[in-house]
Amino acid sequence: MDSAYYNGHYAETDKIRIPLSDRAVYFGDGIYDAAIGRAGEIYLEEEHLNRFFENAERLNLKTDVDRAALSNILKTVAENSGYARYFLYFQLTRNAHTRTHAYPSDARSNLLVTATELKSATRGGVKLITVPDLRHHLCNVKTLNLIPSVMASRRAAECGCDEAIFIRDGIVTECAHSNLLIVKEGAIYTHPTDNLILPGITRARIEKICKCLTIPFYEKRFGVEELYSADEVIISSTSKFSVKATHIDGIKLAENGTYISSRLRNELLLDFNGKSMLKF
Amino acid sequence: MDSAYYNGHYAETDKIRIPLSDRAVYFGDGIYDAAIGRAGEIYLEEEHLNRFFENAERLNLKTDVDRAALSNILKTVAENSGYARYFLYFQLTRNAHTRTHAYPSDARSNLLVTATELKSATRGGVKLITVPDLRHHLCNVKTLNLIPSVMASRRAAECGCDEAIFIRDGIVTECAHSNLLIVKEGAIYTHPTDNLILPGITRARIEKICKCLTIPFYEKRFGVEELYSADEVIISSTSKFSVKATHIDGIKLAENGTYISSRLRNELLLDFNGKSMLKF
Repeated sequence: MDSAYYNGHYAETDKIRIPLSDRAVYFGDGIYDAAIGRAGEIYLEEEHLNRFFENAERLNLKTDVDRAALSNILKTVAENSGYARYFLYFQLTRNAHTRTHAYPSDARSNLLVTATELKSATRGGVKLITVPDLRHHLCNVKTLNLIPSVMASRRAAECGCDEAIFIRDGIVTECAHSNLLIVKEGAIYTHPTDNLILPGITRARIEKICKCLTIPFYEKRFGVEELYSADEVIISSTSKFSVKATHIDGIKLAENGTYISSRLRNELLLDFNGKSMLKF
Repeated sequence: MDSAYYNGHYAETDKIRIPLSDRAVYFGDGIYDAAIGRAGEIYLEEEHLNRFFENAERLNLKTDVDRAALSNILKTVAENSGYARYFLYFQLTRNAHTRTHAYPSDARSNLLVTATELKSATRGGVKLITVPDLRHHLCNVKTLNLIPSVMASRRAAECGCDEAIFIRDGIVTECAHSNLLIVKEGAIYTHPTDNLILPGITRARIEKICKCLTIPFYEKRFGVEELYSADEVIISSTSKFSVKATHIDGIKLAENGTYISSRLRNELLLDFNGKSMLKF
């Protein structure tokens, strides 16, 4: 059953209620992370905890929960859920009793954790659309200010697509809730990790896999033309691992006979299941 | 006492709890407005309700609460508070049980209203700082995605200032929670109402007052140099009316002997108190 935790209390997710002093409600004033796991473990736990606490610090969110305590809470929520494979969502939000933009210096944070069942990940064949990137300039921080991603995702769904690709000033940045990578002549290209994209943990894992498999991996800006003409287009995220795209903006992508996307996906799945032969 | 309403229930503000299906929690997925009032009335009610419902439509937020019902709810919350002069905050957020970016097409909305006491507005002498405008490109919509404004406001407070002025690509847009206007040679200049600023209701009222007083009012982009060298710098918002700035970035602004800011402020206060002699 979907299970959760909020500020010291464990409960079924549906039973959780949060007060108006939680500034998620008024300002989206918080950060989050999401990880997947199985058999009592959290896949790439260290990377997710690092990012979570780094993001908290960027927004000056103070918490008494340290890494060890958070790890325990996450694993308890996973266990309470009873799911064999789980998706863990955890967020830290600022708490302050009065609604005021300039929060008080002693504002503490609220910790929310939820566990849902990790469904079998999409095998491939995702369809994408391109949309203007209307987001703020803090895309490297996993904040709760997600309206542009919500609107883009909804638009993708209305077009029968799975994800939306953001284009900012002619440059492909990433997707609404995934990173984007292209394959061209046997090499991977993806947007550099600046303030315009999220430094995805699956993206970073793909970089390591590429190193093991001697596939060149380049951080480089590219535009829509290079996207359309790529040999393969791949999206990556925690819950989807990596998935190849078949269509962009209603146009079927050419089949160029390269299989880098499926090699990466296989390695990620082996890694998640503790069966990777690669030496990271 | 601080009073509130959430989805059909009236209660003290501290008693309100919201469920995780309210997408304010995960995505800041909603819009809000704020108005002030006295004696059972809401100042510029029509303008605030217009903007609220326009913003709801922009984010495709569906609600069964119409204008008349919302007006009644707002006035009931104000009455429940017992305050003679009140600040009304109202927000509409999307509701959907599963956390998914692409919300379901039948998602309904949650309505939250709070009333607090309207304190005597700042008389003047506010200090401002300039900061980079890191916001998204939906600044014309009053969304709950407010982290850049929160961070800017906090920075202002840490510098002993009252508000932060956003600079985007060298252009002065507005403040973290106010519009900004400058006076130069007897005329008002302010950023045009595009997607980079909020079309403030007080700002629009000032435009009308200027018309009555034959003060030229121009929508025109300007940079930091013009800001520093202005005869007067004014910020405007619902709760502050209009207030003159004395300092920007720690530098005292020149006293050029113009009094447009105080004329505007006086007219706004008369208007709020139902004593304006102007014919709008």
